[in-house]
Parts: sequence; structure tokens; C-alpha cells
Amino acid sequence: MLEGAAALAVLGGGGARVARGQAARDVPRELARLVAANRILANEGVVDAFGHVSVRDPRNRDRFWLSRSRSPALVELDDLMEFALDGTAIDARGRTPYGERMIHAAVYAARADVQSVVHHHAYGVLPFTITAEPLRPVVHTASVIGAEIPVWDIRTKFGGTDMLVRSIEQGSDLAATLADNTCVLIRGHGAVVAGASVERAVLTAIYLQVNANVLLQALPLGAPEPLSAEEIARSAEAQFSPLALDRSWEYFCQRAGVDPA
Amino acid sequence: MLEGAAALAVLGGGGARVARGQAARDVPRELARLVAANRILANEGVVDAFGHVSVRDPRNRDRFWLSRSRSPALVELDDLMEFALDGTAIDARGRTPYGERMIHAAVYAARADVQSVVHHHAYGVLPFTITAEPLRPVVHTASVIGAEIPVWDIRTKFGGTDMLVRSIEQGSDLAATLADNTCVLIRGHGAVVAGASVERAVLTAIYLQVNANVLLQALPLGAPEPLSAEEIARSAEAQFSPLALDRSWEYFCQRAGVDPA
Amino acid sequence: MLEGAAALAVLGGGGARVARGQAARDVPRELARLVAANRILANEGVVDAFGHVSVRDPRNRDRFWLSRSRSPALVELDDLMEFALDGTAIDARGRTPYGERMIHAAVYAARADVQSVVHHHAYGVLPFTITAEPLRPVVHTASVIGAEIPVWDIRTKFGGTDMLVRSIEQGSDLAATLADNTCVLIRGHGAVVAGASVERAVLTAIYLQVNANVLLQALPLGAPEPLSAEEIARSAEAQFSPLALDRSWEYFCQRAGVDPA
Amino acid sequence: MLEGAAALAVLGGGGARVARGQAARDVPRELARLVAANRILANEGVVDAFGHVSVRDPRNRDRFWLSRSRSPALVELDDLMEFALDGTAIDARGRTPYGERMIHAAVYAARADVQSVVHHHAYGVLPFTITAEPLRPVVHTASVIGAEIPVWDIRTKFGGTDMLVRSIEQGSDLAATLADNTCVLIRGHGAVVAGASVERAVLTAIYLQVNANVLLQALPLGAPEPLSAEEIARSAEAQFSPLALDRSWEYFCQRAGVDPA
Repeated sequence: MLEGAAALAVLGGGGARVARGQAARDVPRELARLVAANRILANEGVVDAFGHVSVRDPRNRDRFWLSRSRSPALVELDDLMEFALDGTAIDARGRTPYGERMIHAAVYAARADVQSVVHHHAYGVLPFTITAEPLRPVVHTASVIGAEIPVWDIRTKFGGTDMLVRSIEQGSDLAATLADNTCVLIRGHGAVVAGASVERAVLTAIYLQVNANVLLQALPLGAPEPLSAEEIARSAEAQFSPLALDRSWEYFCQRAGVDPA
Repeated sequence: MLEGAAALAVLGGGGARVARGQAARDVPRELARLVAANRILANEGVVDAFGHVSVRDPRNRDRFWLSRSRSPALVELDDLMEFALDGTAIDARGRTPYGERMIHAAVYAARADVQSVVHHHAYGVLPFTITAEPLRPVVHTASVIGAEIPVWDIRTKFGGTDMLVRSIEQGSDLAATLADNTCVLIRGHGAVVAGASVERAVLTAIYLQVNANVLLQALPLGAPEPLSAEEIARSAEAQFSPLALDRSWEYFCQRAGVDPA
Repeated sequence: MLEGAAALAVLGGGGARVARGQAARDVPRELARLVAANRILANEGVVDAFGHVSVRDPRNRDRFWLSRSRSPALVELDDLMEFALDGTAIDARGRTPYGERMIHAAVYAARADVQSVVHHHAYGVLPFTITAEPLRPVVHTASVIGAEIPVWDIRTKFGGTDMLVRSIEQGSDLAATLADNTCVLIRGHGAVVAGASVERAVLTAIYLQVNANVLLQALPLGAPEPLSAEEIARSAEAQFSPLALDRSWEYFCQRAGVDPA
Repeated sequence: MLEGAAALAVLGGGGARVARGQAARDVPRELARLVAANRILANEGVVDAFGHVSVRDPRNRDRFWLSRSRSPALVELDDLMEFALDGTAIDARGRTPYGERMIHAAVYAARADVQSVVHHHAYGVLPFTITAEPLRPVVHTASVIGAEIPVWDIRTKFGGTDMLVRSIEQGSDLAATLADNTCVLIRGHGAVVAGASVERAVLTAIYLQVNANVLLQALPLGAPEPLSAEEIARSAEAQFSPLALDRSWEYFCQRAGVDPA
């Protein structure tokens, strides 16, 4: 658990701004945010026993941080491991990494704009990975998921597997399907969310699930009206403004019992 | 958090009557109720990171109170800001207001009978903002939502936007669609609920969601039988009688961990 | 809250048998059970701000006990009031009764076998009060709800009302529709559950909701297979055997944080 | 509740491996795991007042352990009873066994590979016991439920009953329908899950429910794409590898407030 005193000093009260996007961040604070991200995603039901979230090293763009193999609800600072962009652990110290760390490695390698990656199996999102129904933003808070969410099927290139993204080749193929989008679904498995910061990736993952749940309830009522391309672009910008992003990050931190880092 | 001793003195035990409607109320108690309203709406899942609730100043009908930009679950007395009916903050003291405070300003300006306004994105309500299925009261506890709930689409008059109600013109247009009703839905966004008191607005917002969820489950079973106009009018009166209103306000306060103010 | 020491002495450990059905019971313990029943129904989401549960007086079959007007989650021993079978309070001591106490009065008057009555608006049950889809037992734990669940519509005899059962005439008409069944639905309003003991009425109300929720999920999958009449009768007997009833009463008490009385 | 010190010594920290499958295990630790299993299944909503979980004795393959008749949420070490494979209690000490212990007895007798059995009525699974819709794995975490899940109907051989599996003949008939599969559904009643260890049985029961819930939400969207036979087999192996099994067991123990035994 993060220590409150230091974190609150950083925040300077209740409504502090958090640094965002490409801005330089110091490593200890970024790792504290990564622990918070784990706890938030668990607390919101985006991840359960499985799923993980990583952050690119703020000083070294060829490295990223990810917990050892542990459920996000339980992740602590000491669980965080550093990885190269081929998925090699820098200093494992006997800790076992996740089997699917290649998802993160491949997305960072392919996308210079991405600072954080979430992989999850949110239950509300899963129906869209096994049916032809497209997952599209229908409510403004979910505009951040983007206009297009492609679906990747490991079977297409790799045949009958255990469904896990185990190799850098599989990760790269997934990243190629993600392309310039923010989210990609994985058939019968889950999703990957890419963000320009830990906070953005976490909030996108949360509202991807909210949007999926709204859509699941709306579809039996008739064809849902989608947001227009312009609405998606403008609303996403508003949702990632400090006004909205700081508010929601503080909220989700409070619910998860972690201090905003 | 409200201090228990003072609040309980006001209540005089468990079954106290709370002042209602247009009756004069003193400001400190009204603001304590507004804090309670924030916590209740968060606790019942009507609002999440986003959404807000306001109250008209009991001494000055041209002013209203609303939290600074903060998630309702976290709002405290010091967060409450006073606004004029054009949305100008009276004494901001460095606090940042919500981007959508114009919703509140415009409804108070248009509707002399309204003392409290809730804006929210309750997940169960959202499907009715993106489909043609009308949201109508089907259970008696939800009669307070009223017989007609219009849907407002910002795109109709303002084209491609970030979906937020940012200007007093947009707010006024929304208020014109609300007209004399209690609730209005906003396409792809959420809802606005108007009440003759904080308690009424909060309870209406809660039972709007209950009614929406019941309807979502009933629709696949066949055409739901609506309440008649007479049933809606009479039942709403019963739901806002002291017998029902005091009981439910005490209940929702207890669930949210706040003292009835 | 019930005091643990006395209640546990009664229980004699973890697996005690509770008296059931028509057996004579002493009043203090029966009232403690009635408080527990209120808390359990609230904790399981069968009741919310509204709904109530009563018990016939074990010494005087022409009297019943019911809380003053208060949400079940908050009911304490001092809230319990005694009523005659015409709904008159015996010793109100300034306490305000529920507006719908006539439901209880009328059912006790009509049904000598009934010792406890629950009235509720469980959200999962409500869709069956506004559509033509019948609510029938489809899983064995819900066999106790009985083979037939009629639907009563206050409009049929009493026209446009506030939907509440306010008079003994309305209550009697509802009881006539209930007839010899265990449950009756009320159009656009909720349900009434009758039981041969507090424990039976509570468990029936809980599993009525479970069965409704299962049915809501099953109906889109195709026509659900109902239990046969013989299965319902035999399974209900098994569910109300000490083996099943004691186990579930202990369980629901523990979840609600009350001692089995 | 398990005592933390001893259990943590066994674990040796946060990421310990738990013994699996057919490996010899000592009895006290196995019974501690059985208590944990009860609490986990209750905490995840797989069981409610009803349902039970057993383990074969690690030293004597003709014996198994199961709680006395008590809801899983409340089970403690002293509640565990030893049974022969005909369902006879070895040393009852006045404790009352579950009426359906024959389910466990019969599965252990029929299946030498099974070390643990769960019987439950998970609400999400029940719709598949009363409709023709087959329950098949559609997400990789649920691959462990197996490619085929037969449905057993007690009525076929035993006519009109109370729906409970009371005799060894009924249990054996159920076990014959289970055959070599991992799960079997029981019409209008619930399911039985067999596992090569307590951890496997528990996780299979949890993800059976997850898969059922995903399928319930996906079916209205169109025909869900199932996992291929090869994907099921390979993914199940991955889900039961130490990497995944240890992680999820630690997670579900933490959520249930028990120490991994």
C-alpha cells in the first residue's frame, strides 16, 4: 500500500493535477501509480485473478515495468519488475514474470505514443470478443475507447494454441491489429488497452467496460445510436482534460483505498 | 462528513420529519443536506466519477450551490461553491467549478418550482438515451419520475460537440426540452432530474434508475404495462408524503454513512 | 441489534434447531426474530427503503406485530408495534404505522395457517408484475414459492389509486386473490409472501427473488422447463425440513449481522 | 478461520507453489484447504445457503471429508466429517451430515482421478439447467470446465422426487452421466464439478459461473464462437499450470479472507 504522507504532499490537497501524457515523470512516483493502477483495475472488476497493467519507464523508453506473476488486487511495489522491449526481465531476483508480458513488450515496441498498457478479461467486454456485434462508443464518458476497436484472433496466424500471447511474434501480430487504435479485443480471451499515461490507460479500460455493459443492455431495445466521429474525438479530449481526468483518478483511487500517486 | 451530534439534534430521533418543498430552510442545514445528497447518489450508483447535484439557495432564489469539480463520493462542505444563475461563481477561492454547471443554472432560471437539480450518467438509464425505447414509469415507487421523460440531443441545435453542456445557451435549450417535466434524458450522455427539494431530487434520481433497470429486464418478456396517468399522479403524491419521503431519506442516508441533515 | 449472549444461549451453538410452523413460541424471541427478518430482507435486497415484514402474535392469534414506518434495514425492537386484525394499533405510543399495514391484517384474517407476512418490491420480481410472463418455480430451492402465483391488480376493483393497499377492503381483496397460495404479485408494485413462520416467509421471499432472476436470464435462451407439481410439493417439504431451514436461517442471519433468534 | 502463521510458513511468502493433483498431501493442510474452499465458493457467490465441497482423504482413497450440514460461508475445521464411499459417517460425534453427501460418495467411487467435488446452485449456471441451450466454454479462463457438460435429470430414472440426490443409486446414476467430464448440470437444481485437487475443483466451479454469465450476455448478440477442442485442451493445461493456478488460488483466498493453506 502506498504511504499516504508522501503521496498527499505530492498532491497538495484534494484537487491536485496529475502529470499527463508524454510529460517527464520521476520513476518512484510512476511506479507508485502503477501499483495504484493494479488496485483500481481489480477494485472496478476490470481484472480478476488474471489481467495486468504496465508502464513504460519514464527515463528509458526501451524499458517497461510490470508486476511479477500476481493478481492485480495483491500487487505491491516490490512485485514490480523491469523488462526490455523483447520481454526479457532486467533484474528478476527470482521473481516469476507473467506468461503474457509479450503483449506489453510488443505494444511498446510498435507504438511510441503509448506509455501504459492494460490487458484484461472484463466480463462485460467478453461477449464482444465471441460474437459479431461490434463494440463502439455509445456514451460520452467512453469516447476515450476510440471510434474503432478491432478484434484479433490468435487462431488466424498461429492455429490451435492455449490462447495465450506467449511469444514476441504473437504480441507483434496483436499490436499490428491494434494499429493506431486505443483498444483491441482478443477473441475468446479479453482486451488490450493502450494509453498515453497510466491514468489514461486505466480510465479507458474502466469505461470500455461501462460502455460494453450499456451496449449489452441497449441492444435488446433496438439499434443503439452511436456517437459520431466528431463527438468521439471532441469528447475524448474533454474526458482527458485535467478537469475530468484528475477528478476520476482521485475517485477511483479513493474507491480502491490507494492514495493518488 | 457531517457531524452526528448536531444533525441528530435536528432530527430528534429516528423518525423525524424533514422540511420539504418550498418551505424556508436555513442555509447550513441545506448545505449539509447537499453533501449528504452527493454521498447518497454515489453510494447508490446513480453517479460514478462524474455527475453532480445542486441546491437553490434557500434565502436567495437567484443563487445555487454546487460542489467544485470533484466526484460526488468525495464531496465535503468546503467543496460547495455558490453560483449566480448565469453560472458565475460568487466566491471561487481558487476552486475549479464543474464544466457543466450551466445545466443547473439554466434549470433554476427556467423553473421557479425547482429547488434542486441532479445530473447523472446512471448506467441503467443510459440505454434509454441511445435507443427509441421510451423510459416510462412502470412501478409505483418510480411514479415520481413523471409521465413524460423527453430526450434532448445536443446535436440538434449545436452540431458536433464534446457532448458536454458548456454554455448557458446549451443549458437553456436543455431546460426548454425538460419543460414542465421532472426528468430529461440526454442522448449518449445521461439525465437531468429536477426536484422541489434536495430529498425529492435525490429520490427521483434513484427511482429513475430502479425503474430503468426493471424495464430493461421486463422488455424481453413482452410489452410492459405502464402506470396510468392517474396512478402516476396519485402515487407520486404518496411517495413524496412525509410517511414515504422521511423513511426513504433516513434509509439512503444510513446506507451512505451520513446523518440525515 | 440483538444481543449476542442471550441469543446464542438459545441457539446452544452453531447448528441449533429453530422452532417452526404452528408450534408455540414465546413473544420476546418471536419479536427478536422479526427484527432479524427485517435486517435479512434488507441485506438480501428483497426490500429497499420500502417493504415490511410482520408476525402473528404467538399467544394471541388476533394480533400481529409490525414495525412502525421505518425501512427494514433500520428496524429495532422498539420499533415493533402490535396491531389488531383490522389494522388498529394497540399501543402506538406516538409511533406512525406503515400506510400498508392492511395487507398484513387482511392476510392474517383470511388465512389461519399464516404466521408471517412479507410485502416487498424486489427488483427481480417486478418484471413479472407488469408483463404476461408467469412467475413459476424452475429451481428446487424456490419450490417453496408454490406452483401458482396469482397477480392482483388494484385497478380492477378500485380504479385509479395511488397503488397502495390502504383499506381493509383492498387488503381483503388482495387476500382473496392470494387464496391458498404462498405468494401473490401486485401489478406495478410488488409482492406479498405468506409463511407458516417468520423463517419460512423470509426464505420464501428470498428464493422468490432468486427464481425470478434465474427465469429472467433463462427466458431469452428458450422455454424454461418448469418443476412438476410433484417436484414442487416434495421439494418444498425438503426445503422446509429442519436440515435445510436451520442451515439457511443461520446463513442469512450471519450475512445480515444478526444472531439467529 | 485458518491461523495465519502456520499457513504462511507453508507458503513461504507470497508466490508459493501449492501442491497439485495426485501428489501426496498431509491431512491437516488438506482440511485447512477444504475450509478455505468453502469460504471462497461462498465469497464468489458460487454457493449460497446451499451447496458443498469435499476432498478425498489424501492417505485413504476410500474416504472423503465434507462439512456437517452447514452453509459453506460458515464452515470451520471442526465441522468437517469423514465419510466412507457409501456415504456413511466414520465418526459423526452428533453432527448432522448434508442430505446430498451421496453426490460426493458416488463421484469418488466412480472416478479414481477425482480428489475434490463441488456441488452448487450458482445462479448464472441455473438457466442452462432448465433450457436446451448448451453450456460450452467460450473464454479461455473457462477452458477448464471441459468441452462437454452433460445434463442429468433425476426424473428420468427416479420419477417425481424432492429433486435431491439422497441415495447412492441416485448418486451413481449422476456419476454415470458425468462420465469422464469435469462438470455435469442437474436439471432445475445446479451442478457438480469434479477436480484433481481442491484448488482445481474450486477454480473450475468459479469459472463455470463466469463462462455461464458471459454466455448469458453474449447469446442475445448472436451465435457465440466456441473455443475449439484443441484450444480447450491446451488452455485448460495452461490454466492449471502453477503460474496460473497459484496466482488465482492466492487471489481468491485473499478475497475470502482466508490464508492460502
